Amino acid sequence: MPRPLAKGMSKDLITMDDLSDDDIVGLLDDAARLVPVAHGDVHLPLLEGKLLGNMFFEPSTRTRMSFETAMKRLGGNVINLGALASSSVSKGETLYDTMRMVDGYCDLAVLRHPRQGAAQYAADACTIPIVNAGDGAGHHPTQTLLDLFTIREELGKLEGLTVGLLGDLRYGRTVHSLAAALARYDATMHFIAPKSLAMPRRVTAELPDGWSAHTTLDEILPELDLLYVTRIQKERFPDPEDYARVAGAYTISAETLRDAKPVLRILHPLPRVNEIATDVDDTGHAAYFRQAFNGVPVRMALLEMLLGSD
Amino acid sequence: MPRPLAKGMSKDLITMDDLSDDDIVGLLDDAARLVPVAHGDVHLPLLEGKLLGNMFFEPSTRTRMSFETAMKRLGGNVINLGALASSSVSKGETLYDTMRMVDGYCDLAVLRHPRQGAAQYAADACTIPIVNAGDGAGHHPTQTLLDLFTIREELGKLEGLTVGLLGDLRYGRTVHSLAAALARYDATMHFIAPKSLAMPRRVTAELPDGWSAHTTLDEILPELDLLYVTRIQKERFPDPEDYARVAGAYTISAETLRDAKPVLRILHPLPRVNEIATDVDDTGHAAYFRQAFNGVPVRMALLEMLLGSD
Amino acid sequence: MPRPLAKGMSKDLITMDDLSDDDIVGLLDDAARLVPVAHGDVHLPLLEGKLLGNMFFEPSTRTRMSFETAMKRLGGNVINLGALASSSVSKGETLYDTMRMVDGYCDLAVLRHPRQGAAQYAADACTIPIVNAGDGAGHHPTQTLLDLFTIREELGKLEGLTVGLLGDLRYGRTVHSLAAALARYDATMHFIAPKSLAMPRRVTAELPDGWSAHTTLDEILPELDLLYVTRIQKERFPDPEDYARVAGAYTISAETLRDAKPVLRILHPLPRVNEIATDVDDTGHAAYFRQAFNGVPVRMALLEMLLGSD
Repeated sequence: MPRPLAKGMSKDLITMDDLSDDDIVGLLDDAARLVPVAHGDVHLPLLEGKLLGNMFFEPSTRTRMSFETAMKRLGGNVINLGALASSSVSKGETLYDTMRMVDGYCDLAVLRHPRQGAAQYAADACTIPIVNAGDGAGHHPTQTLLDLFTIREELGKLEGLTVGLLGDLRYGRTVHSLAAALARYDATMHFIAPKSLAMPRRVTAELPDGWSAHTTLDEILPELDLLYVTRIQKERFPDPEDYARVAGAYTISAETLRDAKPVLRILHPLPRVNEIATDVDDTGHAAYFRQAFNGVPVRMALLEMLLGSD
Repeated sequence: MPRPLAKGMSKDLITMDDLSDDDIVGLLDDAARLVPVAHGDVHLPLLEGKLLGNMFFEPSTRTRMSFETAMKRLGGNVINLGALASSSVSKGETLYDTMRMVDGYCDLAVLRHPRQGAAQYAADACTIPIVNAGDGAGHHPTQTLLDLFTIREELGKLEGLTVGLLGDLRYGRTVHSLAAALARYDATMHFIAPKSLAMPRRVTAELPDGWSAHTTLDEILPELDLLYVTRIQKERFPDPEDYARVAGAYTISAETLRDAKPVLRILHPLPRVNEIATDVDDTGHAAYFRQAFNGVPVRMALLEMLLGSD
Repeated sequence: MPRPLAKGMSKDLITMDDLSDDDIVGLLDDAARLVPVAHGDVHLPLLEGKLLGNMFFEPSTRTRMSFETAMKRLGGNVINLGALASSSVSKGETLYDTMRMVDGYCDLAVLRHPRQGAAQYAADACTIPIVNAGDGAGHHPTQTLLDLFTIREELGKLEGLTVGLLGDLRYGRTVHSLAAALARYDATMHFIAPKSLAMPRRVTAELPDGWSAHTTLDEILPELDLLYVTRIQKERFPDPEDYARVAGAYTISAETLRDAKPVLRILHPLPRVNEIATDVDDTGHAAYFRQAFNGVPVRMALLEMLLGSD
């Protein structure tokens, strides 16, 4: 008499397209409400007895730790896949079999995987909700949600902003999703990148008018309400000298920001290496550490949505 | 005025011989009762305030995560030894000293170790209960318990079954323990393996009549109520070609099972590599994912027995 | 409307100098009171809802696991940085940025780092309390606290003891801090080490009279109330033969202790390799396993002091 494993309808978050505009607003409102819980000032064990599986097939300290913090701050518990060298994956187990295992152990799984499409594949294999925490060149929707939450917290609104996205816009999964999301809120977008790392046509093709491409920041900086900076990875360049020249030209310092609006906020998904000089940290523009913190209340809101009782 | 470390009588689980027939039935009955807790449908924090030490000196994702799940679903907590490269073991600490440490930190320790006899050695060093989660070529009693539980859940009984054990029967610790356990329940057993990986005489010598050895599955398949498949490891073969030939001959697919009884259930301790084709997953025979889940309620029942109040 | 991250005054523990004599006595008294909680005999969830960040940039099984045990025994929760190879540190993130992240996630962070001064640097970056769990050749104050606690538990008092410190006194951070701490309690100290590993002048210069240096234990053993042994690391010697000769001469066995006072207690921060033969474990002199356990109640007392409500 085997018992069925089914636990009711699965509700996954694989891409931002899984969320309606109302869902997004609801999540951001919930996240704002949960900030005191995220800070530990209020103890709210809404998810007591619930278990999250942190399945990171690729390193991501910030994402893993903030999901773990979010779950534990809400009274829930976490099991980690752990270092890959110590896992059954090193014995040749397929993603399908590993996810079927965790499907029996947890109430929800967070998946980071190097392969594009891995999250949807896992969601199809599982009855529990799957949250995509990055699948290669694919999606990372909770990063986009925390970016939107940060923008709304820092600037008081999401609508009608003038936004610069700077750095590696070609391979940067984060900026692709953010551009698509900002388009929902009538943003004027400026894409600032070296030619070899420009925003790909497949992304811009989906955007409404209101964006433009640049190779330098100077001309456009004074107009910006928001500057979103991403890391330029050395590995993208065949020639180290090309990298050195390019990376230097896209480094932000306090000096760079002389002509910025006082209200300008700088975001970065972190970790940063050299893209933002530490002297920016002490200016009113730096919002990236608050952004990192915001991963906690945003992920709390999501976990509550997916796991909480009505 | 040093305080004594003793915490009452230690009750270890090192081999299946530590359990009487009544103990086994009691554990399986408790496990059945705990299934809704294992699924997260019922919150039952029986072990609140208790602490389990997960001491894995060798990788084992499924066993480690299911012990962790079992403990957390019962409201208890877990500390992990963590990656070995980051542990005092890499500084040359003996197993004795490491276990004396954890003896002071936890209420119970689960030990996986590559050396046969390590679990008993640890149990002798510790005042807290030690659960053997695999000691090299030695024992892994909770695997046997979950196998028995799965058989009883899937087939409704343990007594008088016709069982095939297939794959690497020579080095497979799991099948040695299972064969000994099934002998308690008057099973008719068929051992199906290449000659070089046949069931060792030291195992069969302990069995009552009612077993036979085979090199192919076909002749015996139609009689089976249960087929227990294990991984054939490449490393066992000096010649890669020998491996390829043998491994292929012991691969189960939906086609292989054409002549099986409808009631036949297939078990596998997992991870699998190629032993069972994925097309078997969709047949009514596949019970290995439910078997993986069953590790949770069975380990819950054991933890409750060893740590729970009366 | 960004919310401030500040959570009230930070209270860090970087070196023993951060603690007054009264603080130390208070912590040791609290630790004694918490022993039954550390043993798991009493469930006292004082830190429910609190979150500790275990930031180990260098391996330390005992310290990491005992902080985790202390936090969980008090009902709190823990997130781990995890294996470094899997962390953002491997992507080039600075300690400053990593600590700013955890500052937003946790209520307190424990830091082990190979670089001297790292803990103070982290404390300056963070609003939450930082506990130094070893910063290279710098400090490790909770080790000193648990050493003091063990001495008081084992010998009934801290004042006026005759103490031998033996082994690598040159590079041994632990013995430097302990010598300074014991000087507060009018200890007579004997430093026993090979010439090349003698107690450095910068340490002895800070001590009052009442210490002497030795190259062998024999002459001084009969006077000792306490013998604190540390590991001599092979890496300190350019010539393996030098190491072998020296290490052998500083190995303690039951035979070595023939002329010791019955009351003599032996401590070791562990892990040991060959410094103390296992036949010492069965003598009344061995206190190092109880010392390892004492890390739990001492760290509990500290966590309660830094995180508990009034």
